[in-house]
Amino acid sequence: MSEYLLGIDWGSTNRRAYLLDADGQCLRQHADGTGMLAARGRFAEALADLCRDLRVPAGTPVVMSGMVGSAQGWHEVPYLTPDVPLTDLPRQLARLAGPEAPVGIVPGYRLPASADGGVDVMRGEETQLLGALALGAAGGWFILPGTHSKWARLEGERLAQWSTYMTGELFAALGQGGTLAALMAAGAEHDAQAFDSGVAAARVGGALTHALFTVRARVVTGDLPAAQARSFVSGLLIGTEFTACALPAGTELAIIGSPALAARYQDAARHFSLRTRIIDPDRAYCAALGRFMKKESRR
Amino acid sequence: MSEYLLGIDWGSTNRRAYLLDADGQCLRQHADGTGMLAARGRFAEALADLCRDLRVPAGTPVVMSGMVGSAQGWHEVPYLTPDVPLTDLPRQLARLAGPEAPVGIVPGYRLPASADGGVDVMRGEETQLLGALALGAAGGWFILPGTHSKWARLEGERLAQWSTYMTGELFAALGQGGTLAALMAAGAEHDAQAFDSGVAAARVGGALTHALFTVRARVVTGDLPAAQARSFVSGLLIGTEFTACALPAGTELAIIGSPALAARYQDAARHFSLRTRIIDPDRAYCAALGRFMKKESRR
Repeated sequence: MSEYLLGIDWGSTNRRAYLLDADGQCLRQHADGTGMLAARGRFAEALADLCRDLRVPAGTPVVMSGMVGSAQGWHEVPYLTPDVPLTDLPRQLARLAGPEAPVGIVPGYRLPASADGGVDVMRGEETQLLGALALGAAGGWFILPGTHSKWARLEGERLAQWSTYMTGELFAALGQGGTLAALMAAGAEHDAQAFDSGVAAARVGGALTHALFTVRARVVTGDLPAAQARSFVSGLLIGTEFTACALPAGTELAIIGSPALAARYQDAARHFSLRTRIIDPDRAYCAALGRFMKKESRR
Repeated sequence: MSEYLLGIDWGSTNRRAYLLDADGQCLRQHADGTGMLAARGRFAEALADLCRDLRVPAGTPVVMSGMVGSAQGWHEVPYLTPDVPLTDLPRQLARLAGPEAPVGIVPGYRLPASADGGVDVMRGEETQLLGALALGAAGGWFILPGTHSKWARLEGERLAQWSTYMTGELFAALGQGGTLAALMAAGAEHDAQAFDSGVAAARVGGALTHALFTVRARVVTGDLPAAQARSFVSGLLIGTEFTACALPAGTELAIIGSPALAARYQDAARHFSLRTRIIDPDRAYCAALGRFMKKESRR
């Protein structure tokens, strides 16, 4: 029985690692760019490198979540369906054969297609959400912003529904090439007023492909200073999530995100009269690991 | 007085040239990749090269439309507002000083911001629309599909409204990098059923950033074969235009586009019970040039 647990949030392009002691305290934390894409074909080696860098005691069990469990990852773990409660995840770990210490991968979830075409998937966010529950959350709405922003509603310990938005990915793509790239490069600093205008444009509804073109039209006609285009697009894309979810005024949203990104979602939430609170993603992840530790330390 | 007219549809990345005789017949036609971006800083030379390649008689007047008249083009021409009828464009040409033969640039249009935030711009499409009028069109709805698809409504000879959608640009960007690029590379051939499914997904409404993510979710959960992803995304983006415009069933749309692209818009139009007819863009452009010729040959 180990006195430690190593948890790895292993996504497509980044990984974050946390070494916990027997009391669930995070002793050491590490983040690097050795995501699934960089580690492909050499996952065992990439894990060994991480253990050495973090001075992880020999024999420490490992729990991994995220794209590491996808078809392109280390070992494909089938998706769970929402009838399996998040609190059951410690019993659902997929075991990797071979390594000296036990290595488990947290399965993701898939949302079956429904009448409104609600097919969706997650890998990694389920662990953050389990962490939120471990920190005392009691269901309701959660936002996990990022490359693929997720809005999830928990009914008690179960995932009732969720939707993913390619917000961060589209923002990055628009900034890298095409009509808006030069404009978005002009205003690297956040502009609160332009962000608000972008959220307001999203509230109007209509096609996002049209709203994106109007950014250029606004600039060339003098309606929008070029230096504000980047923040306007940010507000437009984040506001699109809120418009689509259309939650009743007064609903509370828990945002599991880094301070800078969470602040943007708080700004947008005010437009829709929604209440927000922020959950630190590292804290949530460590709280989830505490649940796995109880299970793993009994092995 | 010249017996010829050279017309150039000079866009960001491509240019198309047409040499007309005194009867308005197109004698020679040429297309190349010397768009505004490639010709920047050497427009006069790029025009001289074109005239040599097309064996344009000396002294032939030139009419150019498109991004060549933008701030990044040869000579910035101020936008017209919609109160100026399209049929007035021959009187609105901006003259370039210097070249031996008369060179005129067709001004674009801007749509002022309105209560619904309808700010929009066009450069080049106004000439196609003038051509449609010259071919006998009598107002109504027009689609000019492409990198920046435009839906325009004419009231007689005036632009009543229009909206631009970054459809082609977003389709290209999604195919070049990010989550969907590998999937979209898998199915290069058009799949009519997948295209229809994409249009149907667009009709459901909701956030485009979510619908795009569901393409990946559909593939990884087995709902959509990877080889169909490209056509699904095409249907989704084109369907988004139709959903946003929300025209009453039975409305007639004139599609000014190449046969392959126009066919996609016809497929999508059937979902919304809209009637369509196709106008060949080369024919429309030459018809517009006929209007300019009447004016230019009097100089």
